[in-house]
Amino acid sequence: MENTTPESGGLRAAESRSRELEERIAAEPGAFRILTGDRPTGPLHLGHYFGTLANRVRLQRAGVELFVLVADYQVLTDRDAADRLDEHAEGLVADYLAAGIDPSTATIFRHSAVPALNQLMLPFLSLVSIAELNRNPTVKDEIAASRQASVSGLMFTYPVHQAADILFCKANLVPVGKDQLPHQEITRTIARRFNERYAPVFPVPDALLSAAPSLLGTDGQKMSKSRGNAIALSAGPDETARLIRRAVTDDDRRITYAPGTRPQVSTLVQIAALCQDRDPHAVAAEIGDGGAAALKKVVADSVNEFLRPIRARRAELTADRTHLRRVLAEGEERANAIADRTLEEVRTAMAS
Amino acid sequence: MENTTPESGGLRAAESRSRELEERIAAEPGAFRILTGDRPTGPLHLGHYFGTLANRVRLQRAGVELFVLVADYQVLTDRDAADRLDEHAEGLVADYLAAGIDPSTATIFRHSAVPALNQLMLPFLSLVSIAELNRNPTVKDEIAASRQASVSGLMFTYPVHQAADILFCKANLVPVGKDQLPHQEITRTIARRFNERYAPVFPVPDALLSAAPSLLGTDGQKMSKSRGNAIALSAGPDETARLIRRAVTDDDRRITYAPGTRPQVSTLVQIAALCQDRDPHAVAAEIGDGGAAALKKVVADSVNEFLRPIRARRAELTADRTHLRRVLAEGEERANAIADRTLEEVRTAMAS
Repeated sequence: MENTTPESGGLRAAESRSRELEERIAAEPGAFRILTGDRPTGPLHLGHYFGTLANRVRLQRAGVELFVLVADYQVLTDRDAADRLDEHAEGLVADYLAAGIDPSTATIFRHSAVPALNQLMLPFLSLVSIAELNRNPTVKDEIAASRQASVSGLMFTYPVHQAADILFCKANLVPVGKDQLPHQEITRTIARRFNERYAPVFPVPDALLSAAPSLLGTDGQKMSKSRGNAIALSAGPDETARLIRRAVTDDDRRITYAPGTRPQVSTLVQIAALCQDRDPHAVAAEIGDGGAAALKKVVADSVNEFLRPIRARRAELTADRTHLRRVLAEGEERANAIADRTLEEVRTAMAS
Repeated sequence: MENTTPESGGLRAAESRSRELEERIAAEPGAFRILTGDRPTGPLHLGHYFGTLANRVRLQRAGVELFVLVADYQVLTDRDAADRLDEHAEGLVADYLAAGIDPSTATIFRHSAVPALNQLMLPFLSLVSIAELNRNPTVKDEIAASRQASVSGLMFTYPVHQAADILFCKANLVPVGKDQLPHQEITRTIARRFNERYAPVFPVPDALLSAAPSLLGTDGQKMSKSRGNAIALSAGPDETARLIRRAVTDDDRRITYAPGTRPQVSTLVQIAALCQDRDPHAVAAEIGDGGAAALKKVVADSVNEFLRPIRARRAELTADRTHLRRVLAEGEERANAIADRTLEEVRTAMAS
């Protein structure tokens, strides 16, 4: 089997390819189907919104068909027990809808509710070697730290499960961050090998690299619910203001946007700028010598203003969960019909 | 995670446990459900018959409930492409029925037709580490020969797929050969861990070691279709006689049963003895100084006599494949109903 690790030129190639793809999407959005999703581990936050959610909504509004996966089984790769999975899944759907994903054309579904999708793991596992799976950076890191016992079979085979997610619905476009390019490459390898060995059933999907900035938390670290540095879409205005007041800054009263040298202050400026849809340098200049207190006030106001309509929609949606459940049920019915059809094609291709 | 490799005392313990189990089966057969099966790679032969098929028929007639898996996906662990899978699956069902498995109480089904069974792979993969999967002797051998690239993801995760086969129908008994004990141990580990972590959903199944002799081929090597040394249940009498005439023997005209020193001659004696249901020493003594030609005549006659009713039933079954297909369809309907129910229990246990 050939090497599937992207070579050094891989990132630049992917970037240039993504620019081409954006042009093709603009010209013919109906030719694209996207698979994207999240692990239901808790409420989505601003980092998710600006990192991926906004991009999904943009693509859907442009006319691209959206499949959104609530990856409930993959929660098990991170933690021992999956806690309150159903509740988190419904919360995720509320976040999606509040952020603007339209369930009348998007298919929102949970991993665990689509058996035929999961069944694709089996033929797909036969198409990759453990040498290839060992190249997964996450797995490599764990093994390098000689914690082979801490890599579960599910973590090890995660890229193959992801291939099943993407290929079951024949998505031809997958929005990814840079760190996901190797996984994405395994999906492409599996699609190609299946098509060569049996019959041309699958598209070889393209990675669409997101141009979105990766947003840091209020402490200048990676934004993450577990670090307490993330502003959840569902948080209230007071909670938001409190979290921002606690943010780490520095002693220089002059506010500037300089991510390289002032990461914490710049993160706050960036959050305000994203919420106001303005240039971060302009936002910083406006605050000028106001110091951290003025900056934090601007950030809190911007975030609360920006999130107000999203929070209002979310509150409406969670007041009566019937609608959320119906959205999932309908998405899962559609996903199952598609997965059953793909599985039947796979079966026919393999049996003949 | 604890060590799952059976220690040196493991085999003796398994043998003694199997004797106990046979007593409990005799006393209360209805308390047992067995999962067993084969890869549909071609016609079953005498080695399969005396190695496992006869045992399954015996257990079914004693009143044990039988689940028989046509492991069509697992064919992919052995070879690059699955050739004529549907045809081989039907052939396998014909062999089962001809050998005496009663489809009115046995559930015969193919892997590929039961998505909810395959879906169990996902939560089960989260319950074993890659360190544990690396202990699989087959995988170890391949990696030791530095052929990591030749171990597919499917081969690597095979014991987890087997756990799904066994646990989806809550089988509590699995007939195995000695070499399968480590895999069986992984099933027990997975059942135990699931029950501890979530809720007591699964039985921890027992391995039932077969007392059956392992039958060599007509060349004294392991009996295998690909070696051309196997007598298929479906072979004609002439083909059978021809194959036996070509068998390797030695120059000693005196026929004896001495597997340690005369493996080829003893294999032939053993085949005749099994078909006649007699002691191999008695069969050898009867031939006496007749030499290889007399031995081969006795073997061919015994095999053809023994297989005559099985072959007659098989010919009837394959003349009209409608019945075979109906047996599979009914088995798969039953298997799907059970798999869906188990998956629902798993989902509930994990979500709460």
